[in-house]
Amino acid sequence: MTHNRAPMLHDHASLIVYGDDRPGIVAAVAGMLARHGANIVALDQHTDDVEAGAFFQRTVVHVKDLAAALPALEKDLAGTVGDELGLRWRLRDLSVPLRVAILASKSDHCLLDLLWRQRRGELPVVVPMVISNHPDVADDVRFFGVPFFHVPSQGADKRAAEAELLRLLAGNADLIVLARYMQILSGSFIEQVNVPIINIHHSFLPAFVGAGPYQKAKDRGVKLVGATAHYVTEDLDEGPIIEQDVIRVSHRDSVAELVRRGADIERQVLSRAVLWHCQDRVIRHDNQTIVF
Amino acid sequence: MTHNRAPMLHDHASLIVYGDDRPGIVAAVAGMLARHGANIVALDQHTDDVEAGAFFQRTVVHVKDLAAALPALEKDLAGTVGDELGLRWRLRDLSVPLRVAILASKSDHCLLDLLWRQRRGELPVVVPMVISNHPDVADDVRFFGVPFFHVPSQGADKRAAEAELLRLLAGNADLIVLARYMQILSGSFIEQVNVPIINIHHSFLPAFVGAGPYQKAKDRGVKLVGATAHYVTEDLDEGPIIEQDVIRVSHRDSVAELVRRGADIERQVLSRAVLWHCQDRVIRHDNQTIVF
Amino acid sequence: MTHNRAPMLHDHASLIVYGDDRPGIVAAVAGMLARHGANIVALDQHTDDVEAGAFFQRTVVHVKDLAAALPALEKDLAGTVGDELGLRWRLRDLSVPLRVAILASKSDHCLLDLLWRQRRGELPVVVPMVISNHPDVADDVRFFGVPFFHVPSQGADKRAAEAELLRLLAGNADLIVLARYMQILSGSFIEQVNVPIINIHHSFLPAFVGAGPYQKAKDRGVKLVGATAHYVTEDLDEGPIIEQDVIRVSHRDSVAELVRRGADIERQVLSRAVLWHCQDRVIRHDNQTIVF
Amino acid sequence: MTHNRAPMLHDHASLIVYGDDRPGIVAAVAGMLARHGANIVALDQHTDDVEAGAFFQRTVVHVKDLAAALPALEKDLAGTVGDELGLRWRLRDLSVPLRVAILASKSDHCLLDLLWRQRRGELPVVVPMVISNHPDVADDVRFFGVPFFHVPSQGADKRAAEAELLRLLAGNADLIVLARYMQILSGSFIEQVNVPIINIHHSFLPAFVGAGPYQKAKDRGVKLVGATAHYVTEDLDEGPIIEQDVIRVSHRDSVAELVRRGADIERQVLSRAVLWHCQDRVIRHDNQTIVF
Repeated sequence: MTHNRAPMLHDHASLIVYGDDRPGIVAAVAGMLARHGANIVALDQHTDDVEAGAFFQRTVVHVKDLAAALPALEKDLAGTVGDELGLRWRLRDLSVPLRVAILASKSDHCLLDLLWRQRRGELPVVVPMVISNHPDVADDVRFFGVPFFHVPSQGADKRAAEAELLRLLAGNADLIVLARYMQILSGSFIEQVNVPIINIHHSFLPAFVGAGPYQKAKDRGVKLVGATAHYVTEDLDEGPIIEQDVIRVSHRDSVAELVRRGADIERQVLSRAVLWHCQDRVIRHDNQTIVF
Repeated sequence: MTHNRAPMLHDHASLIVYGDDRPGIVAAVAGMLARHGANIVALDQHTDDVEAGAFFQRTVVHVKDLAAALPALEKDLAGTVGDELGLRWRLRDLSVPLRVAILASKSDHCLLDLLWRQRRGELPVVVPMVISNHPDVADDVRFFGVPFFHVPSQGADKRAAEAELLRLLAGNADLIVLARYMQILSGSFIEQVNVPIINIHHSFLPAFVGAGPYQKAKDRGVKLVGATAHYVTEDLDEGPIIEQDVIRVSHRDSVAELVRRGADIERQVLSRAVLWHCQDRVIRHDNQTIVF
Repeated sequence: MTHNRAPMLHDHASLIVYGDDRPGIVAAVAGMLARHGANIVALDQHTDDVEAGAFFQRTVVHVKDLAAALPALEKDLAGTVGDELGLRWRLRDLSVPLRVAILASKSDHCLLDLLWRQRRGELPVVVPMVISNHPDVADDVRFFGVPFFHVPSQGADKRAAEAELLRLLAGNADLIVLARYMQILSGSFIEQVNVPIINIHHSFLPAFVGAGPYQKAKDRGVKLVGATAHYVTEDLDEGPIIEQDVIRVSHRDSVAELVRRGADIERQVLSRAVLWHCQDRVIRHDNQTIVF
Repeated sequence: MTHNRAPMLHDHASLIVYGDDRPGIVAAVAGMLARHGANIVALDQHTDDVEAGAFFQRTVVHVKDLAAALPALEKDLAGTVGDELGLRWRLRDLSVPLRVAILASKSDHCLLDLLWRQRRGELPVVVPMVISNHPDVADDVRFFGVPFFHVPSQGADKRAAEAELLRLLAGNADLIVLARYMQILSGSFIEQVNVPIINIHHSFLPAFVGAGPYQKAKDRGVKLVGATAHYVTEDLDEGPIIEQDVIRVSHRDSVAELVRRGADIERQVLSRAVLWHCQDRVIRHDNQTIVF
């Protein structure tokens, strides 16, 4: 796995190719790219031989005047990679930032970390909006010049709240990040919003699924606590894991202290997962991820 | 938590005191020790204020001619700490090695690591015997000058095997270590053998309890795998955790590779737990541990 | 070492005692505390026996009506611990936040992390001012309600700049934190300001002392980069180390990426060091630290 | 970086290609491999764009009847990759174990770890001999069925000892591992033995070069100690770093304890470096390494 790299690259594109393995894919793709004058500057490839041959590849290419070259490149990919080789592919212009909408509740640690990193140029994204079911973080968000919307979840029925979320998000986001958004999204919402959703769970999944993981960790007497960033699916806490990390704790840490110390690892794990997604490093495969 | 320190100390004793908290315990214990000419060289104390006051303390004292001084010291502890303060206590002469019997199966990594650390003086223990349900490791064990006994578990009924284990272990061990011993011990055995038992579980408990944790980890797509050393209780994989650690893995690691790489973390976690137990650093409290 | 715990505690005080070891210190101090009705809630003790007996102890006590009890307690400490035992001691009311002034340059990651932790109640401090030799971070600082002063270092002679710093800081800070302040402070300044100064160095000291550590790390081809928080002394990068940590890097990371990824470890290491200092967990001893 | 994977692979070969970058290398190499019926099962590529274009690539291919196919493949590589593209290349049959000779002194931790891993099938190597300047480890080595030679360094002049080493090693090893061999090898020896030499240094280089690093670490009061595996060059402790790791220490650890605890990290770091070298994952470039 290659860790977080330079965020935004002029005239660079990432190409993801995956599907059933067969001999000659690397050569066919590389040959096609060479014919378009695309210079390969990074290439990661993985063959999942255990399960009899899934093929995964991420290539970063430099193409002079990329924007102009894209249509022909994409047409050739559709023919050569899609039709002839029968593989799935996607091409992303790495100079175009993704639009990342953030959903939060009262906690500010994951939210502010993402906004700081975006402002500092660490994350190749724009943040079109932050939505929270509590008004607490409004001033902080707006200080960054980012629109804030308050969509209460308490009291209102859940369906109405999700309809309001959909109205705000539809067409305005390429990715939704749940930055400690403490509401469960319905399968219907996930389907309709139709962009990937990344959640940060405050435990080392699959340990301590559900609510109150730090209390559960304290009760079980574990010596490490962690955090997990994963894609959201209909099955709560069961989506494909993108990144995890842990910190050492001891009998001296109360639940409140686990919460506080865990916050540090949550924000790091989430920001890495968001960066990798936005650099198109993550391929979902069954309920797992390949992270190049 | 203080990590592993010098293994065996002439004229040093560790004193564990714990029970309901009240003002003045530290002063009472320290005063009593001072009256016996015992110089405190290390002291760790913890008050579990969240749950309204359990008190835990580990003191290491240096006493000239410790063996001669022990009876009077113990009598005073029974009176002052036991009767007057109503606390539980135990005193260990740190120059006397614990007798640690090891149960293994076919895997040698945890077993050899313990034998080798004992030989090089890292573990303050003697190993009176190694018992395995397979004969594979016999030569290795005997090369270290340690008796090896083969007590098969396959084919024979479990009750007979446990009876044979009891016959060998009874009175000959202060601690039993399950160094990847792949058999489940019955509650009756645990009760009758009547010394602490430490197991190494090849996952980051409570994730992936039971058999085949590396396969389960691969299936769930986790990004870290770990190991857990815990005291054995009747509830499989549910005993008090002593130590845990993890390593980073990726989509590139097959199950076989997880097994191989996990072995490194298993032997480290187990050897730390055994060392800490033998230095009397671990206090069991409900289903948790205080590790000083 | 005990890691970061609950930040601010009503009616709690920390007592640091250190000096030449001798039998009976723990008992004498604990007895004295008991006579004042001070209940010991945490105690860490260390004897540096290798170098023939330095004694270090940190005690946290709970005293009802601490403010009223302090004068008598301090008088007794001066007599019993200072005069009779010949030890150095200090007592801190843990409900009184330290005044921490922050010096920064253009980088915001360490600065914002400290301000944000203070605001969310993680750091038991008040921040009376932030001073920078660049105006870039002024708005961010003032958004937190903290005064910002711009004291340029370029162009102006260094002596004048330090005089201006002294004028602002004198009497207004209990601790000065250099949050990636890229100026070297003179011995004269350090002496006159007369409060501890904590610096974050962007390498794993003593590797890569001086400027440009990430470039040096890249040139040497190291596989880990780190950060070091230390007290500032006249010897640049040579002061007592409080905390260090590292992250894994590879040939894929450019210098710019080392800078970016190192920033994450810098802010964590610095915030831990500041927290521990403010909880009075750190004892300087020769050119080293005891961190309880 | 890809971590340690399955050790030995029938009909698999690794191909390393590196040199000045230019468009089309990946396609040319992949095309050539495809023409030989070689299926790419893993590919890592790196372009060092900062320094204007060095290209590095490691490919693992599966070829039916590899041994029979090798001559034609190598001839084509020499023409296509060597002559036409002007790149350096090497091809290794991954089913053929490397011959790894180990040099040791009195310490057994790194030595035994390598022998255990070799026996367990974790390291794709054979160990033709262990040479030590002390006889202490002879029995342990021979228990593994490995020849042991004692070549004293004390008393004898260094030149004679190195001549004896050369006589034993010449033609019998593909790699020499210094498993805590405490002698400095001359430039003349390094040149004449003419195979790579990997050393384990017991510090986090470049901190604490030279002798006694744990004492130096204690004196400096660092909070982490580490180990470094590197290729040996004439410049002591200055060769290309392959792998490094660290562990957390504190004021409680004496120098003896740093030595003991450091031994754990030394053996892990060394075994990883040896594995990666033997899997042909490491490319030396100037004074650095690319580890795929």
